[in-house]
Amino acid sequence: MSEPTVGIIMGSDSDWPVMGEAAAALEEFDVPFEARVVSAHRMPHEMIEYGESAAARGIRVIIAGAGGAAHLPGMVASVTTLPVIGVPVPLKYLDGMDSLLSIVQMPAGVPVATVSIGGARNAGLLAVRMLASGDAELTEKMAKFQRELRDAARAKNDRLQRES
Amino acid sequence: MSEPTVGIIMGSDSDWPVMGEAAAALEEFDVPFEARVVSAHRMPHEMIEYGESAAARGIRVIIAGAGGAAHLPGMVASVTTLPVIGVPVPLKYLDGMDSLLSIVQMPAGVPVATVSIGGARNAGLLAVRMLASGDAELTEKMAKFQRELRDAARAKNDRLQRES
Amino acid sequence: MSEPTVGIIMGSDSDWPVMGEAAAALEEFDVPFEARVVSAHRMPHEMIEYGESAAARGIRVIIAGAGGAAHLPGMVASVTTLPVIGVPVPLKYLDGMDSLLSIVQMPAGVPVATVSIGGARNAGLLAVRMLASGDAELTEKMAKFQRELRDAARAKNDRLQRES
Amino acid sequence: MSEPTVGIIMGSDSDWPVMGEAAAALEEFDVPFEARVVSAHRMPHEMIEYGESAAARGIRVIIAGAGGAAHLPGMVASVTTLPVIGVPVPLKYLDGMDSLLSIVQMPAGVPVATVSIGGARNAGLLAVRMLASGDAELTEKMAKFQRELRDAARAKNDRLQRES
Amino acid sequence: MSEPTVGIIMGSDSDWPVMGEAAAALEEFDVPFEARVVSAHRMPHEMIEYGESAAARGIRVIIAGAGGAAHLPGMVASVTTLPVIGVPVPLKYLDGMDSLLSIVQMPAGVPVATVSIGGARNAGLLAVRMLASGDAELTEKMAKFQRELRDAARAKNDRLQRES
Amino acid sequence: MSEPTVGIIMGSDSDWPVMGEAAAALEEFDVPFEARVVSAHRMPHEMIEYGESAAARGIRVIIAGAGGAAHLPGMVASVTTLPVIGVPVPLKYLDGMDSLLSIVQMPAGVPVATVSIGGARNAGLLAVRMLASGDAELTEKMAKFQRELRDAARAKNDRLQRES
Amino acid sequence: MSEPTVGIIMGSDSDWPVMGEAAAALEEFDVPFEARVVSAHRMPHEMIEYGESAAARGIRVIIAGAGGAAHLPGMVASVTTLPVIGVPVPLKYLDGMDSLLSIVQMPAGVPVATVSIGGARNAGLLAVRMLASGDAELTEKMAKFQRELRDAARAKNDRLQRES
Amino acid sequence: MSEPTVGIIMGSDSDWPVMGEAAAALEEFDVPFEARVVSAHRMPHEMIEYGESAAARGIRVIIAGAGGAAHLPGMVASVTTLPVIGVPVPLKYLDGMDSLLSIVQMPAGVPVATVSIGGARNAGLLAVRMLASGDAELTEKMAKFQRELRDAARAKNDRLQRES
Repeated sequence: MSEPTVGIIMGSDSDWPVMGEAAAALEEFDVPFEARVVSAHRMPHEMIEYGESAAARGIRVIIAGAGGAAHLPGMVASVTTLPVIGVPVPLKYLDGMDSLLSIVQMPAGVPVATVSIGGARNAGLLAVRMLASGDAELTEKMAKFQRELRDAARAKNDRLQRES
Repeated sequence: MSEPTVGIIMGSDSDWPVMGEAAAALEEFDVPFEARVVSAHRMPHEMIEYGESAAARGIRVIIAGAGGAAHLPGMVASVTTLPVIGVPVPLKYLDGMDSLLSIVQMPAGVPVATVSIGGARNAGLLAVRMLASGDAELTEKMAKFQRELRDAARAKNDRLQRES
Repeated sequence: MSEPTVGIIMGSDSDWPVMGEAAAALEEFDVPFEARVVSAHRMPHEMIEYGESAAARGIRVIIAGAGGAAHLPGMVASVTTLPVIGVPVPLKYLDGMDSLLSIVQMPAGVPVATVSIGGARNAGLLAVRMLASGDAELTEKMAKFQRELRDAARAKNDRLQRES
Repeated sequence: MSEPTVGIIMGSDSDWPVMGEAAAALEEFDVPFEARVVSAHRMPHEMIEYGESAAARGIRVIIAGAGGAAHLPGMVASVTTLPVIGVPVPLKYLDGMDSLLSIVQMPAGVPVATVSIGGARNAGLLAVRMLASGDAELTEKMAKFQRELRDAARAKNDRLQRES
Repeated sequence: MSEPTVGIIMGSDSDWPVMGEAAAALEEFDVPFEARVVSAHRMPHEMIEYGESAAARGIRVIIAGAGGAAHLPGMVASVTTLPVIGVPVPLKYLDGMDSLLSIVQMPAGVPVATVSIGGARNAGLLAVRMLASGDAELTEKMAKFQRELRDAARAKNDRLQRES
Repeated sequence: MSEPTVGIIMGSDSDWPVMGEAAAALEEFDVPFEARVVSAHRMPHEMIEYGESAAARGIRVIIAGAGGAAHLPGMVASVTTLPVIGVPVPLKYLDGMDSLLSIVQMPAGVPVATVSIGGARNAGLLAVRMLASGDAELTEKMAKFQRELRDAARAKNDRLQRES
Repeated sequence: MSEPTVGIIMGSDSDWPVMGEAAAALEEFDVPFEARVVSAHRMPHEMIEYGESAAARGIRVIIAGAGGAAHLPGMVASVTTLPVIGVPVPLKYLDGMDSLLSIVQMPAGVPVATVSIGGARNAGLLAVRMLASGDAELTEKMAKFQRELRDAARAKNDRLQRES
Repeated sequence: MSEPTVGIIMGSDSDWPVMGEAAAALEEFDVPFEARVVSAHRMPHEMIEYGESAAARGIRVIIAGAGGAAHLPGMVASVTTLPVIGVPVPLKYLDGMDSLLSIVQMPAGVPVATVSIGGARNAGLLAVRMLASGDAELTEKMAKFQRELRDAARAKNDRLQRES
């Protein structure tokens, strides 16, 4: 794989079943990425170091997943100029509402692009959209992907009409 | 102003007091933008037309603000390949929780980059980060902005230490 | 079946286990209906086309089910003069609270008649009430249905009194 | 005014500032209506009598507003075959969330068409849509109303583009 | 069993697994009771008739359980002078929060004595306390019951200290 | 005033503007009461002493109001056999939802009869219903009170019909 | 084990599966502790006695777990000068939100150090931090523990990088 | 003032109106403290530096206040062995619920001692309790403080009894 342009980070490998969907989406678009465990609360120095060096290493978008008092997306956003996408990972209680609020309610100055609870696939797709914005080839791939979404929905409609 | 690269859209001009902060942030970074009332529920055709034509007109990021059953960000995202940033505008009741959930909880396939309730300024800054990701000059401006945030916070600290 | 007077639409065939209860209710009243997958986010043009042409095709009530950032009921309501009934479909997290707020909190001008979370059966019954309002035969069927609800409840009471 | 086809009922005259907007919407469409205080908890017999006799008096849609433990819409729906529209009236605490849940979460068998918190204007418009569904003239009025909504939104857009 | 002094009512026999715990508590105190399915929405006349005649039949406390848009406790309270205890029965979604708010948030004038979500056992005990308030023998039983609660908790403490 | 049969207690005199409405309701029914500041957290011994001695002093119902982490109603209920009515007093944040849950969600064994947020008037009326349950004169007063509620609602209806 | 310096208390032995994690954390740091069932609602006198005597017996921190209307932490805090750590134990409904609010929302004057829902392990670690604050040896153990957390996270990162 | 033993930190000087109450509480107990603006998102390096050096400078407890996506308390806790007390500062929307969840829901390993929304005074008192735990003089001050709370509550009771 060529040099990664997207960094996927998470607080623990227990987040991988969710965050792996971001990786899968990037693979569908042939966007090179790296995946790291970078815990805000257990590895604060590595987290800051990760955020500060990401752009220089060629990373153009960071996807950060975390649950509960989810500080990783916002903290990384504070030490990089890159756009950071936050994925609220649902934990055992509260259905991810704590994760969502901890990620989305950032103070003025340091934004996090938040996706839905458990929405790692959309985080990957959002990263593709950001990269595609100045890239005709990737834009065309995204347009094709959206046409395929439409076609799949149409096929479901055909099937439902036959069967209902 | 040169051709806009960011489109700021909202459901009603009553959202402008909130959404104007996105415009102000873009102005601080000399990012050209346009502002439009494009109501999902009152102008659905114009909304779709806006989303479908935005990329061809040179728009690279769309910022969409809406309140209550806030459908504008997600609907526009469904008809463009561009990244769409959603701003949950708080209405009279529920403190914007309805707006937030209506924007952030998008189904797999069509992401919206959601910022905080009323967080239009951060929407502007997030758009700048997206554009800066492949632009050294804009990246340096964002880095400078972040240093200024830090310096302002430091000055507040100095003042607090003197006065408390 | 004669020409449909109720259109049941949903974002995905995965909503059918919920939305099929609306169909079942309509069948109990011999109200002809059609069922379609019409995704707001994956088939926006078809969605608008569906809404705009429904009345001319003889549809008199639309029932729309969606989950999460549920935009289908409100968007269809914006392109038809027909009454639209919204069914909040619960997804994996948040117990359908996001679906409910995304559907019910519509802005002034474009109402959606919202029923309970997962309440597709009531959506069907509500459509029957709307159609029955100017139809003596259907009104009598609804009155009979309500008497049967009462009788079933009475029978439960008899059983409980015997057994408790 | 001719015989009322819509009945607007509420638990107390203190709900009138909210519920009056339903009346105003009906007046815009020349739909004759009546307005009544019919308290579920203070006048239970009159409430039932109101619901049971409404259809025979020519009422075709009932709009019921209530706040807190809001029982009026659901109780009236249980004693009529007419479609009942529920308006969650927000009280001093909880921003109308209690009113919304008390109205929308009806059990299978007895639906209430719920609109947004404080959304009495949309309740009026929903009643018009129900009546218009079999009425070409009223349908055309609703279509015109929706075109005017669009035109007003367009005018806001023009103003915003000039001023922003 | 002698004439019932407590009436336990519920909207459906599906509530009996919860509401049966109220009956069990009353049995522990030898308080005679009756159990009835009295649905607010399916048997509104029987419900009112039940509430209006209860006191004359010797009922001194009514326990009413209901879920979702739970109208039974409040409606019965409006047609009796007896104290009514409401039990929020949790349904499939929302963990009983809708049931709780629909029962507890009664308007001034018509109180419902609300217990915890699913707390039918406490509803039974609360009825006993009400009856015991003017009854030395029942008061002594309640005091004994509370001593036994204490002793059971002490025994748990002994066991925990041995085993932890 | 004769010996009090109802004890109104609260955590602080700042709760009096709310709790005074319970006193007013009792006065309307000529039910003698006492009002006390008995703080669970600041006067735990007095609180327990209050609860344990209340019945012997002739108190038959206790009304306890508290806000936030509202422990007073439940703690008093644990040291008396009397029925305890809890009033969730709303504080500056959360609209009384914390107060409500802290009061109503009591464990099995120790019930609190909870009324609405800020619903002290209903707490007073609930106490009257409890006392009236074995008292024909007080029952008749309560019946008269309910007839007056109905008449006042009817008068509002008359006024609304004239004016709307 | 030497004299306990931490007291772990809970309302019932059914809380032990959660609260046992606090004990485990203390054992890892060789901090002697005791575990007790001390129910606020079933053993109010023992609870007060426990709180009042704890400091004199050498206890320096109290950890109290409770669920629902969770009064134990706050009540114990009111009868001791020791720091009290509250653990919100989640019950069958509401995911522990009632427990959290009942514990954390204490009135000014009587604080409870609240940890996450079900977060008994963190309660144990917080007690260790409190004790370590004036104890170089325990401080070094905590520092070592935090380094081990970091190392474990790093190892997870290594594994994820190899496998993703 | 002698060397500070408590560090009060906050994200912005706009938090001082809330956080100043922690300072006031410490002053009442003659506990020396320092107050700093240390923004997690604007000064991440200073924040980490603050946390890492605090113990060596003689700080024994850290009080950290923050609002919205409140990361300061948890991040500081991750770089110190000291106990960290978190104060959820309420912002313009959501009444501090986002702040509370962002602070309290910390992952296992890194606890934050959370107090009530806006509860800075209790944060100060909790710090005093921690320091008092091994300090007879400070313990006696805290006992005296609690007696004064009781006496003030008693005085309120006397006043209420005279006036009600």
